[in-house]
Amino acid sequence: MFRSIFISLTLITSMAFSVSAKAEEAPRNLIMVIGDGMGFPYLSAYRYFKDGRGMTDQADMEHTIFDRYLVGAASTYPADGTLVTDSAASGTALATGYKTYNGAIGVDADEQPLKNMMEYANERGFLTGTIATTRVTHATPASFFAHVPQRRMEAEIADQYATRNEDGSWKFDLMLGSGRQFFVREGDEENEAVDHLEYFRNHGMRVVSSYEDLQTQQRLPLIGLFHDRDFPYVIDDEKRLKMMVEESLRLLENADQPYVIMIEAAMIDWCGHGNDIGCAMHEMAELDQLLEFLIPYVEEQGDTALVVTADHSTGGLTLGADGEYQFRASEINKIGRSLRLMATELKDMPGIDWDDYIEAHLPFPLSTEQQSELKRVASYEGDNHREAINDVLRDIVGYHTRAGWTTSGHTGEDVPVIAAGPWAEHFRGTQDQTDIARQFIEWIKVQD
Amino acid sequence: MFRSIFISLTLITSMAFSVSAKAEEAPRNLIMVIGDGMGFPYLSAYRYFKDGRGMTDQADMEHTIFDRYLVGAASTYPADGTLVTDSAASGTALATGYKTYNGAIGVDADEQPLKNMMEYANERGFLTGTIATTRVTHATPASFFAHVPQRRMEAEIADQYATRNEDGSWKFDLMLGSGRQFFVREGDEENEAVDHLEYFRNHGMRVVSSYEDLQTQQRLPLIGLFHDRDFPYVIDDEKRLKMMVEESLRLLENADQPYVIMIEAAMIDWCGHGNDIGCAMHEMAELDQLLEFLIPYVEEQGDTALVVTADHSTGGLTLGADGEYQFRASEINKIGRSLRLMATELKDMPGIDWDDYIEAHLPFPLSTEQQSELKRVASYEGDNHREAINDVLRDIVGYHTRAGWTTSGHTGEDVPVIAAGPWAEHFRGTQDQTDIARQFIEWIKVQD
Repeated sequence: MFRSIFISLTLITSMAFSVSAKAEEAPRNLIMVIGDGMGFPYLSAYRYFKDGRGMTDQADMEHTIFDRYLVGAASTYPADGTLVTDSAASGTALATGYKTYNGAIGVDADEQPLKNMMEYANERGFLTGTIATTRVTHATPASFFAHVPQRRMEAEIADQYATRNEDGSWKFDLMLGSGRQFFVREGDEENEAVDHLEYFRNHGMRVVSSYEDLQTQQRLPLIGLFHDRDFPYVIDDEKRLKMMVEESLRLLENADQPYVIMIEAAMIDWCGHGNDIGCAMHEMAELDQLLEFLIPYVEEQGDTALVVTADHSTGGLTLGADGEYQFRASEINKIGRSLRLMATELKDMPGIDWDDYIEAHLPFPLSTEQQSELKRVASYEGDNHREAINDVLRDIVGYHTRAGWTTSGHTGEDVPVIAAGPWAEHFRGTQDQTDIARQFIEWIKVQD
Repeated sequence: MFRSIFISLTLITSMAFSVSAKAEEAPRNLIMVIGDGMGFPYLSAYRYFKDGRGMTDQADMEHTIFDRYLVGAASTYPADGTLVTDSAASGTALATGYKTYNGAIGVDADEQPLKNMMEYANERGFLTGTIATTRVTHATPASFFAHVPQRRMEAEIADQYATRNEDGSWKFDLMLGSGRQFFVREGDEENEAVDHLEYFRNHGMRVVSSYEDLQTQQRLPLIGLFHDRDFPYVIDDEKRLKMMVEESLRLLENADQPYVIMIEAAMIDWCGHGNDIGCAMHEMAELDQLLEFLIPYVEEQGDTALVVTADHSTGGLTLGADGEYQFRASEINKIGRSLRLMATELKDMPGIDWDDYIEAHLPFPLSTEQQSELKRVASYEGDNHREAINDVLRDIVGYHTRAGWTTSGHTGEDVPVIAAGPWAEHFRGTQDQTDIARQFIEWIKVQD
């Protein structure tokens, strides 16, 4: 009997290998998606926001794509003992497999460079790239392509991007995002003028600055910088991440080489810093739209590993606040602008009618106190007028939605891990975020 | 080639069945553990609290048993549209597989009884029971054994417990917790005096009221009520849950019948309501201690399914608050009492020296402002003196630990799902909490 079990086990093992051989080999392509700031509460809140029903009936709540592919959680604590990471330390952990101090971009506690997955990949003939809804020199993408001791050194990060490797290759094959200001800089007494875009063009890299331009491109390497500084929020403009990724995959398919890319839905975090639930939910909708396209794509390809995670949670979001057992998700759908844009427009637009504006973009039944707070801040004449308006609007949104927040910064809870494709199993359960990077690097290193 | 793959698949399937046949059958015994209020942030916070190191180095953070057995997440929204559940609606969902309104104990929106897993189990010859660190008439255990339209009806719940089924069987075989006051009640003008414990004794159920007594028992049915009202907090007293469960398993093993039990670590939630991180972490330590015993036990048995989940998160806990990128987990270890006990003792103990007391139980370097707040509240003479003291202590703990809270109530984020034993796979990924109950009931129903 022992023998027959042994034979059965051997059979199963060999059969399993022959049928799901793919999952035993390393994936050809690797995609890491980072929802910046997307802690677990963002997934729950987004499910209810997307469902959109009012206070009557949630009997058949539909699971989102985040829910359907959730496989586990990741701890994110940095190496500096604070237990709450910033996007630089966390990006470095996800890019290199090593923990470091908050602020560090691709360097360890001694400010020495840590080799990242893009460097391993580049050495082994993978194409590398990033697509981000922020400045490509910002902490998360920078952690995958640069090494500087402080995240604020965005000019130096751009300088590193515009430096080729010893063998003449570029540090990336594809880079889409914003932040043109760090690539084209006027000189001053201390610094020479630089035009890295000119350098890129002169050395065979395509440079684009509009989506239309991107859509006509046929070849890599390519850099696309669509804004001087930052992208607008989705709630104030339109979705763009799925389109950027679709164009990227088209170019990568044309190139017909294995690739490693990092995609960042960057502005979930920014909305979180602003404690702006409307803004955050629309950025989540953008990532949802991307994954509804990308996960079926990856599953059809069959040779690509996809992991979606967050670098940390932001704002200390909770569903419910102030003793109320309610999260009014359907109310969030009524919000028409980001808090930041509303505060800016209310402050700056000449002759604006506050009542009409609030009625149009924040159509809640305002209490007498909320109305008088708005009147007070409309005629406010101190410094920081925009911030004062923002605070009043934020409190109104908080009251009517019952989204709770504990901070303007980050928080240290574990973040979701979502995975698709034949290698999803590798990321089940609780892991540290460095384990994700180490698995990616291990897969890259076997392609010798 | 298609044919050979088909054969391989058939082989794998049949082999898999023969080797892991256990997991294809229903488990013999079912254990559900509910960490009341134990949202994801509690797992992260507890890992760092248990690690206990200071601000220097977290390079090799050890995973807790919660981390090692995490398999997924569960949504918890009730049927009343609030999206934030209470323990009654959530307990009912976990006991019956049906969502209901906040406050409902084992009844649907029309206040009609929903059949719970203990009733299905009782009909099919399972022993049923609960072990809880709260009143056995409290919302969570009550949802598994009673049917009343409002959770506050604890006397009625006790009355239902003391009523036998038509066939003369009890509604439970084992019940450990507190809340003797609802079983032995003095009469008044409207109500007759009742002594359900006397009734239990007279009809063959053992009744115990001390741990020593419990440890000498050899047979079920048994009810053990260890406090008139509530258990003390672990931080103020000692752990007891593991001991209660060990004794329960001994009695269940003696009885040699399949069983379904619900174990509740009830007071995590209470600490959360008080925004008391020290209190919460010690209750988590009690559940940790239980699982470090129970999970290996279940794995060794091989015939028992174990799921650990929460009914909701409480307090809106986050790691980090007020813009600070820090969670000072090691500081939590210094807290020696629950906020509630400290406030009570400071208010009530005659001749108490506040400085000595604070120094002993809350040894943080207090700011001048914190010291003067303590002075103010020491000589406070209004109503709610205890609450006023509690608020000052809570703010001191918040400042020194950077635990953030958004509410004195519950929040609606998804909660962790932890599972062990051969059936753990069934609970992977995101599910609704009713799916857990439905799986349990399905397993019970096959034992016809």
